[in-house]
Amino acid sequence: MKGKFIVLEGSDGSGKSTLAGKLKDYYDQRGAKVLLTREPGGTDLGEEIRDMILRKQGEEMDPRTEALLYAASRAEHVFKKIKPAVEEGYIVLCERYILSSLAYQGYGRDLGPQEVLKINEFATGSFRPDVTFYLKVDWQKTLQRKIDQGGDRLELAGDAFFKRVQEGYQALAQSKGIHVLDAGKTPEEIYQECIKILEEVHG
Amino acid sequence: MKGKFIVLEGSDGSGKSTLAGKLKDYYDQRGAKVLLTREPGGTDLGEEIRDMILRKQGEEMDPRTEALLYAASRAEHVFKKIKPAVEEGYIVLCERYILSSLAYQGYGRDLGPQEVLKINEFATGSFRPDVTFYLKVDWQKTLQRKIDQGGDRLELAGDAFFKRVQEGYQALAQSKGIHVLDAGKTPEEIYQECIKILEEVHG
Repeated sequence: MKGKFIVLEGSDGSGKSTLAGKLKDYYDQRGAKVLLTREPGGTDLGEEIRDMILRKQGEEMDPRTEALLYAASRAEHVFKKIKPAVEEGYIVLCERYILSSLAYQGYGRDLGPQEVLKINEFATGSFRPDVTFYLKVDWQKTLQRKIDQGGDRLELAGDAFFKRVQEGYQALAQSKGIHVLDAGKTPEEIYQECIKILEEVHG
Repeated sequence: MKGKFIVLEGSDGSGKSTLAGKLKDYYDQRGAKVLLTREPGGTDLGEEIRDMILRKQGEEMDPRTEALLYAASRAEHVFKKIKPAVEEGYIVLCERYILSSLAYQGYGRDLGPQEVLKINEFATGSFRPDVTFYLKVDWQKTLQRKIDQGGDRLELAGDAFFKRVQEGYQALAQSKGIHVLDAGKTPEEIYQECIKILEEVHG
């Protein structure tokens, strides 16, 4: 089996880790070499950068700084771990990749997806996934429930950010090569859908 | 006096700090508000990022990661310190800016000046200096002296990097808006040349 780079995208709680685990088992059973990894982080330096972002976020780090730090962490992840593994024949399953930065920094932080894409093309040397799965949640329902429960100003600002991120994901999900999965279905149903697509990918 | 952004460029030991000190005195005596700053660093987060780069360099950080970290540090410097100061009417004197990244990462690390420029345009929102001074050293002399003295493999590799950086500076120095100063002249001569140019800048 040839090395492949498979990315799982979606907001927190959409079921990325569950799906990644099931896909790892699938490949393990077929005797493939599998590497399970995730962003932000994935390397020692990447983890250190992620910690820096999370620690400084409250101190109002400039959005450009945030986007560049995530891209720096990703460069290390791609060139030290993902790309070498794929070249050695590994199936690399990665939770979150460039699409997350486009949604969170491009849309959420209003930097614009095209601008954020540019620095990520630099960061990754345009190294792209063979396939991207996007786990789509019904975020309007989640948001409405939060609004109904009330919430302070900070929470509402947070929700505006959350809303922009979700709208971003929705717009990005229409890009070529993104397979949209309904996160409302059962893990087994989602898994079966993925396998069908992956069988095509491996040819 | 209106706020201005003045950048001093040149390799280590070219006399940037001496010149910056003299220019600060010049503006102080004229009652202008002056901010003296330098890269890499310039903000708390920027210093933290710089420390990370220096600490990890020996562990062979990917050159893209290095370039993105410098750009992240610069974004913070521009948006938290430089740009607000210029808008408040400060004369900002900054040792090193984008040109250093083009020379060290673009040429020195072989990432290409155009690629490195792109991520720095993002990092700074294309915020440019009103004037850039480049202190040019006779690096061939410095290098020849080192070669004559012998030196191990590592040192020679270091010299190859050094050579690419210096050639980069030489190419970049021909860009529009860069004032080349002969670092071999006395500090007073260099200072007088700068003042003439700055008088034109302030009009």
